[in-house]
Amino acid sequence: MANLHSIDEVKQQIPSVLDEIKTEITPLLTKGSVANYIPELGKVDPNRFGLAVRFLDGTTFEIGDSRTDFSIQSISKVFSLTKAFSILKEDLWQRVGKEPSGNPFNSLIQLENENGKPRNPFINAGALVIADIICSHYEEPLNKILKFIRELANNKQLKMNIGVLQSEKSYGHRNAALAHFMKSYNNIHSDVSEVLDCYFGHCSMEMNCVDIATAFLFLANHGTHPLTKKNYLSASQAKRLNALLLTCGTYDSAGDFAFKVGIPGKSGVGGGIAAIIPGLLTVCVWSPGLDKHGNSLAGTKALELFTTKTSISIF
Amino acid sequence: MANLHSIDEVKQQIPSVLDEIKTEITPLLTKGSVANYIPELGKVDPNRFGLAVRFLDGTTFEIGDSRTDFSIQSISKVFSLTKAFSILKEDLWQRVGKEPSGNPFNSLIQLENENGKPRNPFINAGALVIADIICSHYEEPLNKILKFIRELANNKQLKMNIGVLQSEKSYGHRNAALAHFMKSYNNIHSDVSEVLDCYFGHCSMEMNCVDIATAFLFLANHGTHPLTKKNYLSASQAKRLNALLLTCGTYDSAGDFAFKVGIPGKSGVGGGIAAIIPGLLTVCVWSPGLDKHGNSLAGTKALELFTTKTSISIF
Amino acid sequence: MANLHSIDEVKQQIPSVLDEIKTEITPLLTKGSVANYIPELGKVDPNRFGLAVRFLDGTTFEIGDSRTDFSIQSISKVFSLTKAFSILKEDLWQRVGKEPSGNPFNSLIQLENENGKPRNPFINAGALVIADIICSHYEEPLNKILKFIRELANNKQLKMNIGVLQSEKSYGHRNAALAHFMKSYNNIHSDVSEVLDCYFGHCSMEMNCVDIATAFLFLANHGTHPLTKKNYLSASQAKRLNALLLTCGTYDSAGDFAFKVGIPGKSGVGGGIAAIIPGLLTVCVWSPGLDKHGNSLAGTKALELFTTKTSISIF
Amino acid sequence: MANLHSIDEVKQQIPSVLDEIKTEITPLLTKGSVANYIPELGKVDPNRFGLAVRFLDGTTFEIGDSRTDFSIQSISKVFSLTKAFSILKEDLWQRVGKEPSGNPFNSLIQLENENGKPRNPFINAGALVIADIICSHYEEPLNKILKFIRELANNKQLKMNIGVLQSEKSYGHRNAALAHFMKSYNNIHSDVSEVLDCYFGHCSMEMNCVDIATAFLFLANHGTHPLTKKNYLSASQAKRLNALLLTCGTYDSAGDFAFKVGIPGKSGVGGGIAAIIPGLLTVCVWSPGLDKHGNSLAGTKALELFTTKTSISIF
Repeated sequence: MANLHSIDEVKQQIPSVLDEIKTEITPLLTKGSVANYIPELGKVDPNRFGLAVRFLDGTTFEIGDSRTDFSIQSISKVFSLTKAFSILKEDLWQRVGKEPSGNPFNSLIQLENENGKPRNPFINAGALVIADIICSHYEEPLNKILKFIRELANNKQLKMNIGVLQSEKSYGHRNAALAHFMKSYNNIHSDVSEVLDCYFGHCSMEMNCVDIATAFLFLANHGTHPLTKKNYLSASQAKRLNALLLTCGTYDSAGDFAFKVGIPGKSGVGGGIAAIIPGLLTVCVWSPGLDKHGNSLAGTKALELFTTKTSISIF
Repeated sequence: MANLHSIDEVKQQIPSVLDEIKTEITPLLTKGSVANYIPELGKVDPNRFGLAVRFLDGTTFEIGDSRTDFSIQSISKVFSLTKAFSILKEDLWQRVGKEPSGNPFNSLIQLENENGKPRNPFINAGALVIADIICSHYEEPLNKILKFIRELANNKQLKMNIGVLQSEKSYGHRNAALAHFMKSYNNIHSDVSEVLDCYFGHCSMEMNCVDIATAFLFLANHGTHPLTKKNYLSASQAKRLNALLLTCGTYDSAGDFAFKVGIPGKSGVGGGIAAIIPGLLTVCVWSPGLDKHGNSLAGTKALELFTTKTSISIF
Repeated sequence: MANLHSIDEVKQQIPSVLDEIKTEITPLLTKGSVANYIPELGKVDPNRFGLAVRFLDGTTFEIGDSRTDFSIQSISKVFSLTKAFSILKEDLWQRVGKEPSGNPFNSLIQLENENGKPRNPFINAGALVIADIICSHYEEPLNKILKFIRELANNKQLKMNIGVLQSEKSYGHRNAALAHFMKSYNNIHSDVSEVLDCYFGHCSMEMNCVDIATAFLFLANHGTHPLTKKNYLSASQAKRLNALLLTCGTYDSAGDFAFKVGIPGKSGVGGGIAAIIPGLLTVCVWSPGLDKHGNSLAGTKALELFTTKTSISIF
Repeated sequence: MANLHSIDEVKQQIPSVLDEIKTEITPLLTKGSVANYIPELGKVDPNRFGLAVRFLDGTTFEIGDSRTDFSIQSISKVFSLTKAFSILKEDLWQRVGKEPSGNPFNSLIQLENENGKPRNPFINAGALVIADIICSHYEEPLNKILKFIRELANNKQLKMNIGVLQSEKSYGHRNAALAHFMKSYNNIHSDVSEVLDCYFGHCSMEMNCVDIATAFLFLANHGTHPLTKKNYLSASQAKRLNALLLTCGTYDSAGDFAFKVGIPGKSGVGGGIAAIIPGLLTVCVWSPGLDKHGNSLAGTKALELFTTKTSISIF
């Protein structure tokens, strides 16, 4: 943050930066492909674009469809990981690794080579282990995690999209394969169907850009939500989770994301990407067209433009 | 850097932090294994430990064997990459990727699956492509790169260890395999022997902790060396190289390094690790005993203690 | 068969050959490990050994525990494949390959690299596709296949071991993973649970050496069972199935089996191995201790001794 | 061989079978692709087709370009293996495996996963180990092997194509990579350049269909050449080498070749395939157009037609 003279100076430039971003990414909106592995997701209009920035003091800047709900999908993995991390602490890493996978998000190959221990909590296999941990710990695991997301986002209205949920379940054979496979290595303890219910449940949650930016604020503030003052992770844990997001948060293009955007972030195949500038702000962008790695194409570009134009960088 | 009130406050705490680190890591010195894939490296005393911190203004803090020369090995890959990046700019990434490999540093598997394009410039295959780029660009590529390292370290006395160099060449069949393999994909343009000479040459350079910390200062200062004012990379390139170091700088434990240490760094099997806190300082640690991933065991712990005790973090 | 002067000469030598084999393999009986991936299988006495030879004219030679029932496990894959091959004919190979896998029998790696099409019908994934084909074709698929096995063995008393069946189902997460995984590629059409029921069902069948040798006779006789005269496969299909058994019948040691034993065969983790000398005879051996590839250790040696001592070879 | 009433009956039908084969494969001649990884090979006319059959008594049947020399390429691996097998006997298998690879012929992946021990002697890595064994054993290894091939073919005029040899050397980076890689695992003992010279040398030998059919006769006759009465392998070794050819002789389509053709064979990218019907005859076919696995497309079909039309089968 060497280029920043003050937070106020940063805030001042945001509105024009957002305008420029919207203009520059508009031609990209149609370049990506809307996720269609489940029919429900394929129905989204590819021309939607929204972005919201929230500072630690609650100041919000937004542009486009920043108040339109979309399917958060894998962004939800950050919430479930936070919950599991606060439960198991460093013991969590006995069950799941913290290395980039170098392979597509739903690959079984590395899992087989590494005896059923997923590379990191953001690939599907890892998120299923996280869901399993939550299932082992709570009576009503899905309700617990949904309630947790609502609390982080400070929005009691948030709910699952039942159509997406049904669709996930009907087409979820790859995830069922992952869960059964890990159960064969004893790295899933609950019933596979229960774990899948929890996992599909939190993935089918709907939120808008402002909700998500709000829900990520605790990661920009050493583990304590700056608006509610509730503490979720220790400063060290929050720092570590951010590091993990930088190295593993965007599937097998995490290196490229770090290279171009340069801040921790988490993407979902619904087209959303949440990112964190520690000590300063969070940003959430949404555009449904995906690149070949499953990240929002225009959304990634928008974040690259955001860090470039504001000269905000952690490096 | 949210916890830092001022650079002076940081500086004040460094001496006692270094003392604590030395005490805490001493029991670990014998836990690692000195690299022995070439006989020359295996001769080093595993009890050596040195650490040097350099601030952008040139202030230096050091402890232990910080002025003892050691074989820089893969740390040199940062220097050759800097040179190649300044030559080819973003075209560089046509020849080499920027994703974590998820595999050991000298693996051929990913190379085969990806048509001879190495995952990143820090695995051996990637560094050989970088050496090839330098061979294509300069008449005397090895001299050019050695001169460049001396300039960055501001030390004209630096030289290769000829014993290590001979040893590398005699035992370098794995690297020869990588180079021939990539040449079969047309991703090595010069003669394999010329590329290997350049690569083994810069890897066999000897430097001490202070030299290396000095040589890395430009990466903490947006591409311009703060002491000599010479510019090597643009601010954007320096930021990107730091991001690359964070995601790929420590072999297949880059995720763990980011998680625990939380700053960009580059390790070598000689036991050195150089790390960068952008906008503030560089640090170089040396301890010859390696963990199973090829990173200095006590050195990694020393850096983790350094960022923890000073509360310096980029996240 | 160049060394054979007549079938009668072969027959004459069999009794003494079997005696010698029993003597020579006895020290090996305790060298293998009884399969214990399901508790029920682990209960078998490792000192059991049986062998039965059946000529095309029905002549039988046997030694040891040749009338003791054991779990046929993967040997059953030959029966289900025969059924599916007779249903789909050459179209079968759209759904499953005919190449050696080069990987353990329950690997998902190759499956992922090859879009859910198993390498061959004898690895678990391939046998699940075969079970799926049978499920698509018959109302009561498991009954159909069990009836088919009883017909081939000419023994109406054959039945599943219910304890083994339950055990398979409880510990069958790896196979469930394979089936769900292939369903995600649309290479399983029925419900996963139905396919698993059929597969676990035929694997938990119990037979003795004489039953199995009888059931394999049609493969030694161009597709027609020599005792019942019923035709199951065309001569060309039978020849092809034998070729497939030679290249893929004994997991990832098929090459070694072909090298040492030199005839088509199929092993099961229950310790049985059925083998075929086309135009002449079938042989079934049983010894529960397995080598590291999952083939009966003493059983493989017994077959090697059998072909060596009788000088019978297809090569 | 159950369908054969007598060798004379077989011989009688051969001429008309060869005529039919030539007619049926003619439309396929242009369907394959001539090998072009080295320019010299790419110059061959794809419309060439030749076939020669030799019985153990020396009777020869031939059709088409059966007397035109072509580059034997990997067919030569059978000759070098025979030499190395006779030198090291069963100790050979310490250095090279006998399992199908399941991967392309020049893959490094399996080699890395299996510590530098090639899967079998017919993939390039395995053939390089074989060449290394010959280099360790003889003063003039290449001359020795060439002389051996001439002796087997009973033709002193056979020689290397120097243009192909030079071409191989210039484009041989993949094989150099394999050799260096195995040397890093200590599975190559001589100098890499010496091993490559021997390997490229025997691969660049030129022979015609009759030469090759003659040279393979010892494998159809328990290790003894039926025309010269010289013994090269024991009956057991010959049987085992045939088994190895069946499981591994045609790259990663060995299963398919066994399935369709049903006899041991070895292909080369020059378009030749040699095959063996133990106890009866050898056959060599040549057609330069290759399928995607590197086997002669029309040649494979010709052999399938040959075994089908003559009803000769080992199964």
